Amino acid sequence: MSVKRLTVIGIGAGDPDHLTLQGAKAIAATDVFFILDKGEEKSDLVRLRHRLIEDHAREPYRIVEARDPERDRTTPAYTEAVEDWRERRAALYLRLIDEALAEGQTGSFLVWGDPGVYDSTLAILERLPGFEIEVVPGISAVAALTARHRVSLTSVASPLHLTTGRRLSEQGPTADDMVIMLDARCAFDGLDDFDIYWGAYLGTPDEILIAGPVAEVGERIKRERAQARERKGWIMDTYLLRRR
Amino acid sequence: MSVKRLTVIGIGAGDPDHLTLQGAKAIAATDVFFILDKGEEKSDLVRLRHRLIEDHAREPYRIVEARDPERDRTTPAYTEAVEDWRERRAALYLRLIDEALAEGQTGSFLVWGDPGVYDSTLAILERLPGFEIEVVPGISAVAALTARHRVSLTSVASPLHLTTGRRLSEQGPTADDMVIMLDARCAFDGLDDFDIYWGAYLGTPDEILIAGPVAEVGERIKRERAQARERKGWIMDTYLLRRR
Repeated sequence: MSVKRLTVIGIGAGDPDHLTLQGAKAIAATDVFFILDKGEEKSDLVRLRHRLIEDHAREPYRIVEARDPERDRTTPAYTEAVEDWRERRAALYLRLIDEALAEGQTGSFLVWGDPGVYDSTLAILERLPGFEIEVVPGISAVAALTARHRVSLTSVASPLHLTTGRRLSEQGPTADDMVIMLDARCAFDGLDDFDIYWGAYLGTPDEILIAGPVAEVGERIKRERAQARERKGWIMDTYLLRRR
Repeated sequence: MSVKRLTVIGIGAGDPDHLTLQGAKAIAATDVFFILDKGEEKSDLVRLRHRLIEDHAREPYRIVEARDPERDRTTPAYTEAVEDWRERRAALYLRLIDEALAEGQTGSFLVWGDPGVYDSTLAILERLPGFEIEVVPGISAVAALTARHRVSLTSVASPLHLTTGRRLSEQGPTADDMVIMLDARCAFDGLDDFDIYWGAYLGTPDEILIAGPVAEVGERIKRERAQARERKGWIMDTYLLRRR
């Protein structure tokens, strides 16, 4: 009996040209695309997926769209809330795959950035038994950020810590070079012995880049971040902190 | 007066299909390719660059090849040795660019992996005055590694430390999730409360992947690594350590 194949394709950080040749081939080999929407406010992300499918998919193919379950954002138990959310998403994904994908066919998930960097699609598909899974690496927001600022992510012989805004707020700086993701609260505030390389909506026409000493540009980042979020209804941003 | 443009293009971690559409366009827009060889033993890497140029460049173009200066590997002062090496490379690159690139033309450096991850091309070009520099992000060995092992680089709400074999040997583990690069001495040895996801020659026909508890697969990795290095004359490998 032939199995169902699932491909998790990293589509890069916003620029349609971030797609790799491997990603384009994987899209061309897809029978069913599963597009899970996290809510209206991020419909730009859904639009990019549709565009990549138009540009690279081969007929015949189907697109299955669904709304991702909501994560419980009221509980302080972050890890448990994520775990519960993943369980509910796994159940949904399994149902969608059962309904739409035939034996021997390939279903694809187009994932923002790189599927290995703070994305849960892989962890969810892992829970589903009996599929053949392939992962196509993508340009992460981290790689896009440093490329746009024309700086290196790492310093010679030095470690790089990739962490969340929540962790940075709780623990303070843990290394001379840090990349912060998922920071809704500007946890860089007050880290005046660091330079910051900040970017929002990377690779898109809305891209904003600001770099400089935190003491000099921190307030401007907070202001522009709040304005952009207000204007667009959502924001995706990340930044590198480097000790001066 | 029109300036000379330099593009640093991340070509991915070994698979020619790791190249992004942006990378392919940047190759097509290049007048002069600068290929710096680090020595005969890594000529596979030079071959990949030539292949990508053949596949994506547009006539007319030139290829300028040179041998990178040697780094002093006898001194214990690692950072200083790297600094001195970079100075000598900057002088060489400037001479090559002066000789080969006309005003208004674009010269490109094809960089293994992502230009931001433990690569010095950007730091070297930064020292050269008067050029317009663009960076094209690439699939890093880190992204390729986790994709091939179908695991996530990061765990929920947890930090990821990217560091060198030397640092791991000196300091021991600093996080539950660590990626180790530039490790010539199997610094994972003895870290028996970790799982390891190891990969060598990622994305190439010679690729080797081994995963499991360090206590169970560590010896096999050491053995296969030594054999592969002996057979090919060089090795490029990296690994993820995840606390069990």
